[in-house]
Amino acid sequence: MAVGSGSWPEMHPVKGFRLGTAEAGIRKQDRKDLVIMNWDQGASVAGVFTLNRFCAAPVHLARRRINRLPEYFVINTGNANAGTGEQGMADATEVCRALAEFARVQEDQVLPFSTGVIGEPLPVGKIVSGLPTAFSDLSEDGWHRAGEGILTTDTRPKGASRQFEVDGKRYTVTGISKGSGMIKPNMATMLAFMATDVSVDETVLQSLLSDAVNLSFNRISVDGDTSTNDCCMLVATGKAGNESIMQSQGPLYQALKEAVEEVAMTLTQAIVRDGEGATKFVTIQVEQASSVVDALEVAYTIAHSPLVKTALFASDPNWGRILAAVGRAEIEELKIDKVSIWLDDVCIVQDGGVACSYTEAEGERVMNQEEILIRVQLGAGTITETLWTTDLSHEYVRINAEYRT
Amino acid sequence: MAVGSGSWPEMHPVKGFRLGTAEAGIRKQDRKDLVIMNWDQGASVAGVFTLNRFCAAPVHLARRRINRLPEYFVINTGNANAGTGEQGMADATEVCRALAEFARVQEDQVLPFSTGVIGEPLPVGKIVSGLPTAFSDLSEDGWHRAGEGILTTDTRPKGASRQFEVDGKRYTVTGISKGSGMIKPNMATMLAFMATDVSVDETVLQSLLSDAVNLSFNRISVDGDTSTNDCCMLVATGKAGNESIMQSQGPLYQALKEAVEEVAMTLTQAIVRDGEGATKFVTIQVEQASSVVDALEVAYTIAHSPLVKTALFASDPNWGRILAAVGRAEIEELKIDKVSIWLDDVCIVQDGGVACSYTEAEGERVMNQEEILIRVQLGAGTITETLWTTDLSHEYVRINAEYRT
Repeated sequence: MAVGSGSWPEMHPVKGFRLGTAEAGIRKQDRKDLVIMNWDQGASVAGVFTLNRFCAAPVHLARRRINRLPEYFVINTGNANAGTGEQGMADATEVCRALAEFARVQEDQVLPFSTGVIGEPLPVGKIVSGLPTAFSDLSEDGWHRAGEGILTTDTRPKGASRQFEVDGKRYTVTGISKGSGMIKPNMATMLAFMATDVSVDETVLQSLLSDAVNLSFNRISVDGDTSTNDCCMLVATGKAGNESIMQSQGPLYQALKEAVEEVAMTLTQAIVRDGEGATKFVTIQVEQASSVVDALEVAYTIAHSPLVKTALFASDPNWGRILAAVGRAEIEELKIDKVSIWLDDVCIVQDGGVACSYTEAEGERVMNQEEILIRVQLGAGTITETLWTTDLSHEYVRINAEYRT
Repeated sequence: MAVGSGSWPEMHPVKGFRLGTAEAGIRKQDRKDLVIMNWDQGASVAGVFTLNRFCAAPVHLARRRINRLPEYFVINTGNANAGTGEQGMADATEVCRALAEFARVQEDQVLPFSTGVIGEPLPVGKIVSGLPTAFSDLSEDGWHRAGEGILTTDTRPKGASRQFEVDGKRYTVTGISKGSGMIKPNMATMLAFMATDVSVDETVLQSLLSDAVNLSFNRISVDGDTSTNDCCMLVATGKAGNESIMQSQGPLYQALKEAVEEVAMTLTQAIVRDGEGATKFVTIQVEQASSVVDALEVAYTIAHSPLVKTALFASDPNWGRILAAVGRAEIEELKIDKVSIWLDDVCIVQDGGVACSYTEAEGERVMNQEEILIRVQLGAGTITETLWTTDLSHEYVRINAEYRT
């Protein structure tokens, strides 16, 4: 199951950024499961990595090498190389070494990424055997095949692309992601790779990416939002020929920032829509909070509530469950009689009690939609925060209970 | 579904504590749904109430009246009288007033408790009509009927009783509870009523109860551990004739404390075992933590993980999911290479990686059990904390999706 059509968008190539894909038979046969990405010297590379302390071997390596002028990403699906100890580090290193030798770069200019089953040894031989095919496939038009090559239990590839003009010059941001929402088994939850042809200083790029991730990938209710393998990377090839952006300001910086945020947001929401077992795409917006922390605490308490999620699955306008979730959110002060809650345009709770105007029929109308907005007004301040989640369905339990059996 | 037999234990009456039950037709016909509890003047009463800010009208009243020499509890099931605003307060007050008039006590000596559907007006007329029958049923032997009379979607009544001797004198602690684990729809989650014949100062009793609740009812992974209606009450009738306990020390105090903790723990675990859809009873014990807060954070992160819960349902020894949950727990410092994890007697993770001695067959053997202990050693200190939870099954989704439809 998945929400919406998920049709593949037009993907504008990014000058100087190449992708190559191969079938290496890592876990299943006849399936794209190995992707290489490559760019020329002089690019800037930024990355945001999982905060999970049990992070996988490739994450350790990628994080360590990000400042060593990387020129290659190598990504395999089917095996997360997580929980694999010293052997896992040796295996990830070996894959990078093999690619570096083949591509004639330094070993630490290759950053590895893995997604798939936790706790099984990485099939290094298969991956290394697949490298030449992926290498010969490298092309600026390789986004779609790469989008397929990084999937695990996703039902469809996820891509987004934006172009914008500043001073008559056209720039591009394009990216792909994988992950299945709140709903991942022990597969690594989320990978995203974006590239732009804008020339940007590395420090500026890193802060831009961190901000964008905070507004997108870090705003979905995913168990694994800190899974062992999560990574989001952004490469700026600089091939557009602009004077390099050295500060977080100016028209080009602003335009780039907006484009990256849009691409990141689209990739994020694609992950939620493809959540395993998802039948609803739910936006939770908390308004009038006195702080970002409070707004997010309320939003996540709603988003993580199994009772709210099962009500969403059942299309049941069960406002009591939403109210109870708001009531137990761990925020400093909550003035009950100032709280209002809306399902799309239908006010269900006003001043802390059921709204006079509310009818069950109106509530059901909204809950039957495939896309639903839950809006909570706290009446405490001016801060708004938004996140995205799914419902909790039979399919979710089936997928996650049967995953390894 | 429920775990274990749940047979009804021998319930020792508590001298001076009477329970009466009636069928008032509050939500369904031919079902015990109204319970009165009564004791003589001179008793001490302690209570722990939900921290949910949207707490129900009866909780407001009960909390306010607990220090006004209460002599009656009146408990209805079928309707939580929550989210009902001013009318809800008026309704709860009216029920108390009617009972007070009938029983010839002051109105504020009656404490109301409600559990059931949120957001529907309390059927005051039906409740008041049922009061005489419940009143005439008052008896020290009324525990079993009362245990049935407070249930909502529970599959069985929950009771526990202990006797102990100090200086050749025998004392009793007996109690009942209702609730269905992590797994409640918008029914009020948890109610518990305990009584003892020991004479105890009210301040001492309150602190003893708070401690016992912290070790039991506050140690289960329940969405609604702060639901709108949770209450746990303890009445000390003083009819045993001991010299009243005035301080939190001494042999009788210690013996009472242990008995209350045992009864509370049994009632707590009965709630988890009766969790809607529960097929497993899971104990999560975090050891070698540097603080209580850290130990609980790790334990709750495991207990709340849908991925761990579905693996438990599937009897899948998916240690990667447990490891990932530990890794994302929000504690100050986590030394990965000191973490060990056990399923009962089987070590699955040692020094942060899969244990050399581990075999899938051994893991499966434990996971197939109906009762499972997950033990995590953090290698950071000397603190141990324990909590209890259930798996996440198809039945859970069915019950909570279909609850109102």
